[in-house]
Amino acid sequence: MFTKLKSYEKLKTLAKDPIDLTNKEIFTLDRVKKMQVNLSSSCNLDFILLYATERVTQDVINSLFELANEAKALSKMKDMQDGKTINSLRKCESENRKVLHTAMRDFFENQNTSKEAKLATVLASKELKKLEEFLKRINTNDKFQNIVQIGIGGSFLGPKALASALKKYTLKNRKFYFIANVDPDDSCYVLDNIDLSKTLFVSVSKSGTTLETLTNEEIVKDRLRKKGLNPKDHMACITSKHSPMDDSSKYLESFYIWDYVGGRYSATSMVGGVLIGFCFGIDIFKDLLKGASYMDKIALKKGKDNLPLFSALLGIWNRNFLGYSNEAIIPYSQALLYFPLHLQQLDMESNGKSINKDCEKVLFKTGPIIFGDIATNAQHSFFQLLHQGSDIVPIEFIGFKKSQLERDLKIKGTLSQEKLLSNMFAQSIALAQGQKNKNPNKNFSGNRVNHILLANRLEPYTLGALLSYFEHKIAFQGFIWDINSFDQEGVQLGKILANKFLDIFAKKEVDFDIGKQYLKFLQFD
Amino acid sequence: MFTKLKSYEKLKTLAKDPIDLTNKEIFTLDRVKKMQVNLSSSCNLDFILLYATERVTQDVINSLFELANEAKALSKMKDMQDGKTINSLRKCESENRKVLHTAMRDFFENQNTSKEAKLATVLASKELKKLEEFLKRINTNDKFQNIVQIGIGGSFLGPKALASALKKYTLKNRKFYFIANVDPDDSCYVLDNIDLSKTLFVSVSKSGTTLETLTNEEIVKDRLRKKGLNPKDHMACITSKHSPMDDSSKYLESFYIWDYVGGRYSATSMVGGVLIGFCFGIDIFKDLLKGASYMDKIALKKGKDNLPLFSALLGIWNRNFLGYSNEAIIPYSQALLYFPLHLQQLDMESNGKSINKDCEKVLFKTGPIIFGDIATNAQHSFFQLLHQGSDIVPIEFIGFKKSQLERDLKIKGTLSQEKLLSNMFAQSIALAQGQKNKNPNKNFSGNRVNHILLANRLEPYTLGALLSYFEHKIAFQGFIWDINSFDQEGVQLGKILANKFLDIFAKKEVDFDIGKQYLKFLQFD
Repeated sequence: MFTKLKSYEKLKTLAKDPIDLTNKEIFTLDRVKKMQVNLSSSCNLDFILLYATERVTQDVINSLFELANEAKALSKMKDMQDGKTINSLRKCESENRKVLHTAMRDFFENQNTSKEAKLATVLASKELKKLEEFLKRINTNDKFQNIVQIGIGGSFLGPKALASALKKYTLKNRKFYFIANVDPDDSCYVLDNIDLSKTLFVSVSKSGTTLETLTNEEIVKDRLRKKGLNPKDHMACITSKHSPMDDSSKYLESFYIWDYVGGRYSATSMVGGVLIGFCFGIDIFKDLLKGASYMDKIALKKGKDNLPLFSALLGIWNRNFLGYSNEAIIPYSQALLYFPLHLQQLDMESNGKSINKDCEKVLFKTGPIIFGDIATNAQHSFFQLLHQGSDIVPIEFIGFKKSQLERDLKIKGTLSQEKLLSNMFAQSIALAQGQKNKNPNKNFSGNRVNHILLANRLEPYTLGALLSYFEHKIAFQGFIWDINSFDQEGVQLGKILANKFLDIFAKKEVDFDIGKQYLKFLQFD
Repeated sequence: MFTKLKSYEKLKTLAKDPIDLTNKEIFTLDRVKKMQVNLSSSCNLDFILLYATERVTQDVINSLFELANEAKALSKMKDMQDGKTINSLRKCESENRKVLHTAMRDFFENQNTSKEAKLATVLASKELKKLEEFLKRINTNDKFQNIVQIGIGGSFLGPKALASALKKYTLKNRKFYFIANVDPDDSCYVLDNIDLSKTLFVSVSKSGTTLETLTNEEIVKDRLRKKGLNPKDHMACITSKHSPMDDSSKYLESFYIWDYVGGRYSATSMVGGVLIGFCFGIDIFKDLLKGASYMDKIALKKGKDNLPLFSALLGIWNRNFLGYSNEAIIPYSQALLYFPLHLQQLDMESNGKSINKDCEKVLFKTGPIIFGDIATNAQHSFFQLLHQGSDIVPIEFIGFKKSQLERDLKIKGTLSQEKLLSNMFAQSIALAQGQKNKNPNKNFSGNRVNHILLANRLEPYTLGALLSYFEHKIAFQGFIWDINSFDQEGVQLGKILANKFLDIFAKKEVDFDIGKQYLKFLQFD
């Protein structure tokens, strides 16, 4: 158990008196230079993690790596990528599945040699081929300009985050939209504003039974029919083979996913692939996969260049030893506007758990509460609390040396990109160092921990690597806590009760008195 | 001081053994019926607050109202709306300003009789008149179809939240956009996709000196000139009278705001008004103001029908007595997509403070960390943690009996709107009640507190009332904690350091060695 690991005690002791970043003799340039993980020296990736602004010493870092070692983090990562059944619990019933989102992109080098992983890669590769042919087919008759993905949760947030980050690469006349919410206003606003005759719809549901998605799909079909269009000519689906959705009479094409690709980890499967391929071309999607796969390999490496593990450990230090509940993700890049929302799901759905793999209630904190927004927008919004609030919120900044579009204007001596980066570096240092002032209102207590992940420019390859970095960071934390990061049993109870309410609305017989009275009291007839 | 109030001790005692919502003899329909604030009986507004799913008893509620009483919450609210200098600290230097966003909308009934408030209302009324005439003028020649608001923080998040909620009312061919981030990619993506010759730009900066906004304004002007267009013919501004931005040679019109309207409280001033008036018409904006003003009056009322005060007290119970750090805002309405981001700023920038009005460091928790997302999208994203995570996150649900557009389809016996509401009610109850299960992975501990604010339909008037409800909820919390909710000194240090970094990029002389070395080390030349 996590709290029984030897290094746990050592870290507890170290956390009693963490290093003081407001001390200018401690927070020096030398510290900044030493406290970096620079992948460009050991790997072919220009990521630098700057962590001098965390309350860590070399001793803390070493102890954290001991912790990872004791918890067998690396071999668990290997098990995952090898297709062992790790979506499981040891002492109670659970999903008992493999976790193989890494196989969705393991096409390029050092292919995994385990039988399970190989098989998954072959199947994924077939789907990619299918997608290539599908795109060729629909590009020939040039019928579609819009793509609308109908999906929710992992079928929505990941693809939206990636597609928004890739806008630069948009093919001529291609546009993407999403319908997720079951609120009927959501589909209305999307469908009212596009030419349905030029639109490809893609329904995404692994089980083929997701309430919101099936409902929205029916609304779309109804609209298509009312326009005199045949739904079948406008729809594809992404689902499991033989799911209720897998019906070739209804779709132009069925793309497959498998139970070993969790919704929130599915962005590099066809769940992201169809939309990304349609809007930006298959080569952009492949570049994304290459970047993700490259980071997958880094996650298997021993040593401190294992960037996702490093980041996971900084998170554990802040969460379990310094006691912080939240983590903010602040990308200094407009293209990553929707990335924090995806990471919020990825992290909170994976690690928002209260039992360990032995099915015992854990007595320590698991996944933090994640939120975020981009760059200076966030600074002008909630950074007041981050600087002077009564809680400390660890921050992960993400920045790029160059802007994505590289179209910039020098105003008052600097480019906008320089203004952007100046702000990011300034925030990182200001939060850590603080500043004393005689006026208590102008006093900054400092020691507000953060780190920066810096890369050169946000390209498809970088984006893939960034996505994989976070996927593995989260997985590593789950491995170290010994929880199952891959199920989501917590969403079931709400679903069951919602169905009972639905039955009342549908005037069906239902044994749910409080629900009936509740709606009556609120004057729903 | 907050912790010295008599009722504080009483509440501390009550919090030691809060009511157990998982007990089915406690969580009954009777409780649901009793634990509501229904405004439609006492006020002319169809808001119901359902709080049976909070861990409160009548005793707790009474004690919370005693707390408000001891803290003089109501008379402080009156002081605010009367224009007393409440943006101030008693024992150290601060902004020393009035706080009169309520005067921006006090045109309709029971006008405030204080001299300061009256004067502010007269000035605001003039601006509204100016806006009406401006809109008539530009509507006559029908030149503009797009409006782009250039602003950040309060000049961005509030107007965006409101405009997005009002899309239903969009006038023919009108569209709105925002440029906020200093990332040059932000302005590029907006400007590349609109017809500049048909676009009105509105620059918003109270001081007239906001770095991001001035930079983006220059980028816009550069683009206009390159298209052969005269910037002056395409630009209006919203700023303080006599600010560096208030220059009639540069703008079609200057609209004014005042130092007594904080950025995050400015959505009902011209900061929101110009864009809302342009896109939806002046009458929609007036309806919004009416709703806000009506809620302003409710905030002055004694008794438990004071909805913002009620909500503020529930928040204080959860924050200071039950010890929760966060609060999630989950609207079950697509139209409120951007509302949580606005509330995040409103709350965290207002109450993310560590000193009281006597300039002493407070020894209790102030403003919580706010995040949120809409409806079923949120359920499929981070609700796993809300149900089974190791932290309890209080939730404020916001729902409407009817969808905004009222275009719906019955599928499998129910409308989408019924599906939406079924989910909201189910989540609220599931989180509170929990559910025991022999399988620890299917066990729901319950007592995950939340409440629902329910209204009939999201119309401009309702939206205004909703905005004001949150503004006053936050103000009340600040009053009770005795902190200043109206300054934002915490954002200054980052600004100062950012300017130093900028000077290095601009190759100016600057006494900031660590910054210079930092950039050199990161290989910026």
